Amino acid sequence: LLAFGDKALGFGGRVWRIGADDPRRAVHGLKVGLALAMVSVFYYTRPLYDGVGGAAMWALLTVVVVFEYTVGGCVYKGFNRAIATASAAVIALGVHWIASKSGDKFEPFIRSGSVFLLAAMATFSRFIPTVKARFDYGVTIFILTYSLVAVSGYRVGALVALAQQRVCTISIGVSICFAICVLICPVWAGQELHRATARNMESLAGALEAIVEGYFLADAAEEEASGDKRPSSSNATEGYRCVLNSKASEDSQANLARWEPPHGSFGFRHPYGQYRNVGAAMRHCAYCVEALAGCARSAEAQPAAPHGGHSRRHLAGACTRVAALCARVLREASASVTSMTASGILDFAVADMNAAVQDLRDDLRALPSGLLLAGAGSAASTALLVDAAQLFTVTSLLIEVSARVEGVV
Amino acid sequence: LLAFGDKALGFGGRVWRIGADDPRRAVHGLKVGLALAMVSVFYYTRPLYDGVGGAAMWALLTVVVVFEYTVGGCVYKGFNRAIATASAAVIALGVHWIASKSGDKFEPFIRSGSVFLLAAMATFSRFIPTVKARFDYGVTIFILTYSLVAVSGYRVGALVALAQQRVCTISIGVSICFAICVLICPVWAGQELHRATARNMESLAGALEAIVEGYFLADAAEEEASGDKRPSSSNATEGYRCVLNSKASEDSQANLARWEPPHGSFGFRHPYGQYRNVGAAMRHCAYCVEALAGCARSAEAQPAAPHGGHSRRHLAGACTRVAALCARVLREASASVTSMTASGILDFAVADMNAAVQDLRDDLRALPSGLLLAGAGSAASTALLVDAAQLFTVTSLLIEVSARVEGVV
Repeated sequence: LLAFGDKALGFGGRVWRIGADDPRRAVHGLKVGLALAMVSVFYYTRPLYDGVGGAAMWALLTVVVVFEYTVGGCVYKGFNRAIATASAAVIALGVHWIASKSGDKFEPFIRSGSVFLLAAMATFSRFIPTVKARFDYGVTIFILTYSLVAVSGYRVGALVALAQQRVCTISIGVSICFAICVLICPVWAGQELHRATARNMESLAGALEAIVEGYFLADAAEEEASGDKRPSSSNATEGYRCVLNSKASEDSQANLARWEPPHGSFGFRHPYGQYRNVGAAMRHCAYCVEALAGCARSAEAQPAAPHGGHSRRHLAGACTRVAALCARVLREASASVTSMTASGILDFAVADMNAAVQDLRDDLRALPSGLLLAGAGSAASTALLVDAAQLFTVTSLLIEVSARVEGVV
Repeated sequence: LLAFGDKALGFGGRVWRIGADDPRRAVHGLKVGLALAMVSVFYYTRPLYDGVGGAAMWALLTVVVVFEYTVGGCVYKGFNRAIATASAAVIALGVHWIASKSGDKFEPFIRSGSVFLLAAMATFSRFIPTVKARFDYGVTIFILTYSLVAVSGYRVGALVALAQQRVCTISIGVSICFAICVLICPVWAGQELHRATARNMESLAGALEAIVEGYFLADAAEEEASGDKRPSSSNATEGYRCVLNSKASEDSQANLARWEPPHGSFGFRHPYGQYRNVGAAMRHCAYCVEALAGCARSAEAQPAAPHGGHSRRHLAGACTRVAALCARVLREASASVTSMTASGILDFAVADMNAAVQDLRDDLRALPSGLLLAGAGSAASTALLVDAAQLFTVTSLLIEVSARVEGVV
């Protein structure tokens, strides 16, 4: 029982931390509760209730299903739901008219057949990438509404009134959702994307510096036989990992952000597609950082050859300088993304970085050949350096892309 | 008008290709249509209709919402929907009883308040990772059912009958879904995951071979001034790209596969989590391949130094041999994943590969120092080789992981 209590406490602690990390999540929960409570109040108010009849249930359903964490998600779902319901209702009424003209015998066949055909076509259309990205939810609602109206039309009769009620209640639900979503602590998908891009650049810069410095520091520490400073930087070196798998969340955020109305410094046709390009360039960069980190790790595992230290020290200066400049460029780019201005310093920083890379190449070429042959430690060091040179090429590519974005923003 | 016709034709062609690439997608569309048609037939059959009353609508709704592409997705949604509906109904009935005891004045407040509280808590719980992975859909349905029952209870009165009807119609809908999903051309998420894992290994092996060979081939071609053979291998070299971003789809498939009943060679407690580990190791490997490919590309862009050719040719043999053995290990692992047996050849292949890597290291150390200093071409070559050595370490790690999986499967 005590173990269970411990477990429950641990779970409670984790849940608390989820809320404390990002209070907007807790606020989101309260927002959903508030929206539902408002709809239920609407339900209890007799004059309003009499206006829409028993269909008030659809307003509840709409709120539960449409309310999303970000404004973009909410608009996307609300818009999809409204359009899909309306178009499905129109088509269903048309088919209903045809079916009612065709006599009692064929009527069920026409209805069931049309449901079969439209559902099959609509479901298949969800595999088309553009439909998947923008109208996935709408297609579900289209099938749902169409089959409900087409099938129940056989029994209920007063189809037009039903459709009218549904449209009315759904618009009530959607407008309550929009109002609460936008007015109370809105979470904009575009802003999230913007912040995540800048943050990823920062963490990439930090990881790059930490790995290269850690490599040479560990080296120096090894010679002094004191490895105290390594664990302190482990936080920074792990930071780039979230960049590696950022594709899915970036794509969905960019898709949702497109639905958002203009807000703050995000204009009407904000180029959200560019964030995706920058994200791809950053991932490209992160792959290189990953390879570099692996290199440094395997080099640490091997015992350093006695002669290896020399060649390392020979290159350490140029190497850390390149890493620092590279990180500076990334930070500069991050800052200019945050402020949404093309900064002139960025160009200088890129030029500085390229000069440093050239210096490093020269250093590498001028390295005494004897040291290169000394042993594995030296080979790993060379690997690190050339790998770094490679990384910097990619980074400069990234910088170019981000510089292009600044022009667009 | 003609341009529009062209566009429509192009779009039609693309849609056709989506279906032709994977006919199961078209079959999926037909399955959904069939399920809906069956429910609507159910609706038209008078004795059955009289049994459940007007609530037959819920069966339609359930089919539309629960039917998913994979069996795992279908079971996941159906199970979630059933459990969530039942638990929400029980809680709602309890609150209803309390509310009905508390007098007319407090009743609406208790109802709205409980909706607010439960909805807020449930929405917040969706941010907990385990809930998100396994019960995301169930939470939505829980909120939906609870608020529907709690609010409409105020008006309708015959709550128990309503709840009974809903459970009955939902179970009809879910069982039709399951039957059609499993009996007609089932798409198993576990099998998809299995195949994707084996295919990713294959493409990784192909890309690795193609890049290293292409690098040395392009070199040879440059000396003979005929670059015919490069574009032919571009297909293979691009194959690893899908491995880079496989995390999201793998995670969701592993999550869904856990819901699937035993089928074929997939037993009851098939270790789907292991696929995720293998996938992570493969991504790790793919990052290295990406860095290697970037290295080879930038080396191609630079003009080869006259002396560089020598050192390259010196190492080309050992290098391509390592790549080939590495690809062989990956292919062997892929085959043993496909057949779900631990193959003895795999161990030998790994040993061969490690020996080849050791050879390559020795070669690198024995390389005449003069050549190393000859120029950039040589430096890039060294980079490629050491990078390759690094890659092979990672690959052997991957092999270890996959070998471990074989033990588990």
